[in-house]
Amino acid sequence: MTLITPVILCGGSGTRLWPRSRARFPKPFLPLVGDRTLFEGTVARAADPATYAPPIVVTGSAHLDHVEAQLAGVAGAQVIVEPSARNTAAAIALAALRLPESAIMLVCPSDHYIADAAAFTAAARAAAALAAEDWLVSFGIEATAPETGFGYLHRGEAIGASGGYKVARFVEKPDLDRARQFLASGEYAWNGGIFAFRAGAFLAELESHRPAIAAAAREAVAAGCADGARFHPEPQAFARIESESVDYAVMENTARAAMVPADMGWSDIGNWPALRDARPRDEAGNSVTGRAELVDCRNVLVESDGPRVSVIGLEDVIIVVDGDEVLVTSAAGAQLVGKLSGAVNQ
Amino acid sequence: MTLITPVILCGGSGTRLWPRSRARFPKPFLPLVGDRTLFEGTVARAADPATYAPPIVVTGSAHLDHVEAQLAGVAGAQVIVEPSARNTAAAIALAALRLPESAIMLVCPSDHYIADAAAFTAAARAAAALAAEDWLVSFGIEATAPETGFGYLHRGEAIGASGGYKVARFVEKPDLDRARQFLASGEYAWNGGIFAFRAGAFLAELESHRPAIAAAAREAVAAGCADGARFHPEPQAFARIESESVDYAVMENTARAAMVPADMGWSDIGNWPALRDARPRDEAGNSVTGRAELVDCRNVLVESDGPRVSVIGLEDVIIVVDGDEVLVTSAAGAQLVGKLSGAVNQ
Repeated sequence: MTLITPVILCGGSGTRLWPRSRARFPKPFLPLVGDRTLFEGTVARAADPATYAPPIVVTGSAHLDHVEAQLAGVAGAQVIVEPSARNTAAAIALAALRLPESAIMLVCPSDHYIADAAAFTAAARAAAALAAEDWLVSFGIEATAPETGFGYLHRGEAIGASGGYKVARFVEKPDLDRARQFLASGEYAWNGGIFAFRAGAFLAELESHRPAIAAAAREAVAAGCADGARFHPEPQAFARIESESVDYAVMENTARAAMVPADMGWSDIGNWPALRDARPRDEAGNSVTGRAELVDCRNVLVESDGPRVSVIGLEDVIIVVDGDEVLVTSAAGAQLVGKLSGAVNQ
Repeated sequence: MTLITPVILCGGSGTRLWPRSRARFPKPFLPLVGDRTLFEGTVARAADPATYAPPIVVTGSAHLDHVEAQLAGVAGAQVIVEPSARNTAAAIALAALRLPESAIMLVCPSDHYIADAAAFTAAARAAAALAAEDWLVSFGIEATAPETGFGYLHRGEAIGASGGYKVARFVEKPDLDRARQFLASGEYAWNGGIFAFRAGAFLAELESHRPAIAAAAREAVAAGCADGARFHPEPQAFARIESESVDYAVMENTARAAMVPADMGWSDIGNWPALRDARPRDEAGNSVTGRAELVDCRNVLVESDGPRVSVIGLEDVIIVVDGDEVLVTSAAGAQLVGKLSGAVNQ
């Protein structure tokens, strides 16, 4: 079997985990669960040379120092440095254009947490096998709650004995009622933003549904320049690309959309309560990083980079101390963190 | 009318307002409400030379620097430096022994907040008039809630047209049911620890009910030494004094206990919710000192000495940032603050 090339996407700023995640030191590069950063974990999950080729990381210049520091020691890794941010369709196109058409790409966000690495690789192998047959494959994350913050994949008919399925339909973030129906039906999975493509097949579909993006990306790569392990696309051509997600530009349009089920302890660590739930917790559901004393507390997350935090009589509250910022929010209120002045005006 | 001599008691450490109040910089010396410290406010309330003589402050060596710094500019103020802490009966005895027997003392804790200074002085004048007739007078603070943290005074018969009453009974901290009964009856007031005595009358009662305390205090003063505005009681004699409150040693035993009603916006600022309630609050009941952003919050107190505090979706929560300590507590949980490791191990 062809080796799988991990394509790791490192964009975005993660304001929903402010103030721990900041513009200059964002979420992928922080050790949020365990000792490794989310980025390091993403690299390590797809590092077995029997299965994976060296990774390609697509990032911007703002994060390049972090990427290269945390890639140190990964043989053969390449970095594509985006001259501007143009969302996932463009980022994946750059990587596809830097690979042979026959290469099997495994596109992974760099800021997710996956507890079960073996289940991840099993799903990656199943997805790669389908991608080799020119399916465009999404990981269908086992839905465990009626989340309204994720897109959903409606499972279609099985594709032979591959273990995969056609995608009957992509569903944008639903309201709570629909999310509950999805969960109850058992026919829906979360769209976790993890994909497997044959490079040539992806580019053909992009050419078909978004020819302007494909053409500009092709021009940006043709006129770009390599600098050691770095590759710099040509900025003016790249700047012309319309900012679109791969879901919207390609996956929702292709007739070859497939999915593989993935039950692997996945979390997008999309907000503070999600991080709390991904971390080890004590009997009362509390999780502490740093110095803290908790009295009569339940389901409280404390994260402090220095000061001692003393907490009494609270439930479902998140407390974060980071430098000159202190955040105290109810779990329900954590969805508003990204709109705080401190998060907006970084 | 004889001038009233304020006797200001500066002991204790106030762990219930930890971490803002610390052993080295305790509650009386902090600007907790408004720009003045509670100590400065206590001095200023009793500073009108038409009514008051210069104050006598009784404190320990640990607080002497704060006392003298915050007394700067108060003409004629004297400081009695206790060689050890022996509770209020001993502290008041020292002051009484340093005054003429005819002096009228107004004993005031240094760490209470009183919003209505005019009502305070009206009550002080009424109390002083009764003290001049050798009543031992407590301020009976108008009870506004069924507090279980205070002692209560049961009002007895009126003393002529003085505006004061005999005290029918002193009641230790009641349980909630009894506190509710007291409040409903209208016959009970809080014992706020503010007293008026003629110096000679106080000493005679102390002699009668606690002769050992009176004798040791007399010896400590006789063998003590003055040093400018400071007076140092003799340590060995003072150390022999049994540690007793003036309530327990004198007020509950004397046949001459009286009270004057005082409705003056009093608070002992005895815990964080009490401080919140004494401060100006916005329409949602929130009170902020320092940099903060509050979203969907009610009755939240934020006090920060530097870092910005961002709060979302909380009600009746106290958040204090002070140097290397952060406290987050429910209002109900605030009673446990003094038992936190940080407060205990200062």
